[in-house]
Amino acid sequence: MASALRVLGIDPGLTRCGVGVVDVRPDRSAALVHVGVVRSGAELPVAERLALIARGLREVLATYRPDVVAVERVFAQQNRSTVMGTAQASGIALLLAAEHGLSAATHTPSEVKAAITGYGSADKRQVQTMVARVLRLDALPQPADAADALAIALCHGWRRDTPAGSTASGTLTPAQRAWADAEKKAARR
Amino acid sequence: MASALRVLGIDPGLTRCGVGVVDVRPDRSAALVHVGVVRSGAELPVAERLALIARGLREVLATYRPDVVAVERVFAQQNRSTVMGTAQASGIALLLAAEHGLSAATHTPSEVKAAITGYGSADKRQVQTMVARVLRLDALPQPADAADALAIALCHGWRRDTPAGSTASGTLTPAQRAWADAEKKAARR
Repeated sequence: MASALRVLGIDPGLTRCGVGVVDVRPDRSAALVHVGVVRSGAELPVAERLALIARGLREVLATYRPDVVAVERVFAQQNRSTVMGTAQASGIALLLAAEHGLSAATHTPSEVKAAITGYGSADKRQVQTMVARVLRLDALPQPADAADALAIALCHGWRRDTPAGSTASGTLTPAQRAWADAEKKAARR
Repeated sequence: MASALRVLGIDPGLTRCGVGVVDVRPDRSAALVHVGVVRSGAELPVAERLALIARGLREVLATYRPDVVAVERVFAQQNRSTVMGTAQASGIALLLAAEHGLSAATHTPSEVKAAITGYGSADKRQVQTMVARVLRLDALPQPADAADALAIALCHGWRRDTPAGSTASGTLTPAQRAWADAEKKAARR
């Protein structure tokens, strides 16, 4: 596992902030290290909620010591009522990465879906199914925020430049290849 | 000055984050303690920009030791291209307040304008003029972000429950009274 890249994926949120840590190997296979959700109660002032999110993320950073951090990008157009809290939580995630000396990338939901399923408009269930398959999990990751965090981590782990000695062929990720195969099979029926 | 409330006002932003510290006395008079802008270069990754903002805000917190923090509230509807960065910076400001054990309030731009000028749709120049008058400054605070931060601090300082022994009368702030007087004079001409 010495050559694996350990990626912390974060699906930012104020009520539920998904965190997923995966080790991605040069052959693009991946293993689950940690998955969870950092929560804060809606009855608390926003500043205290952000402090709880920060504390939870610091614990994950200290415990699992990722090499890089990937955060889902937030858009102003998204769900109006919660988008500001989501943006604030994403700011906390990016700040903590920088303060731990880690590079932090952001990926759009479409980028994540395309990396995981080969299809930028895939639904949540498709993404969860592929995440479970890639990580050889017996069950779909729950809740959705945790699964999304794993998807972001995998998306970022697969996006690094293909290292020397990699067995990856072409430009498809293993998940994309599996998805493409499944679609071909379905088309043949 | 023992009974003065020291308020740190923050006008959040990624390129320019305005900071203003004022001492507000029970009679609602106020004195300038510090005004400035924390900057980060647009060429840097967002995570590093947020770390620079955090560092600047921590310096202000450590140097001037405010009693409370007030941050301008960000809305999704505002200027689309920068609103996410502004929201992220506001998240950092609120987090740092909480981590310093300080209560943190948010005020809308309209609330701030109404508190300072008596008029929720006042333009920036009116707000700057009143801030300079209240704080007995020889010149208008520059840049605008710094003036806005002072306005937020004054708005919050005046909003606390009127303490016993206050000489304030009625519900108008000193700035609101001055503004009302000026309007009456203008109407008489």
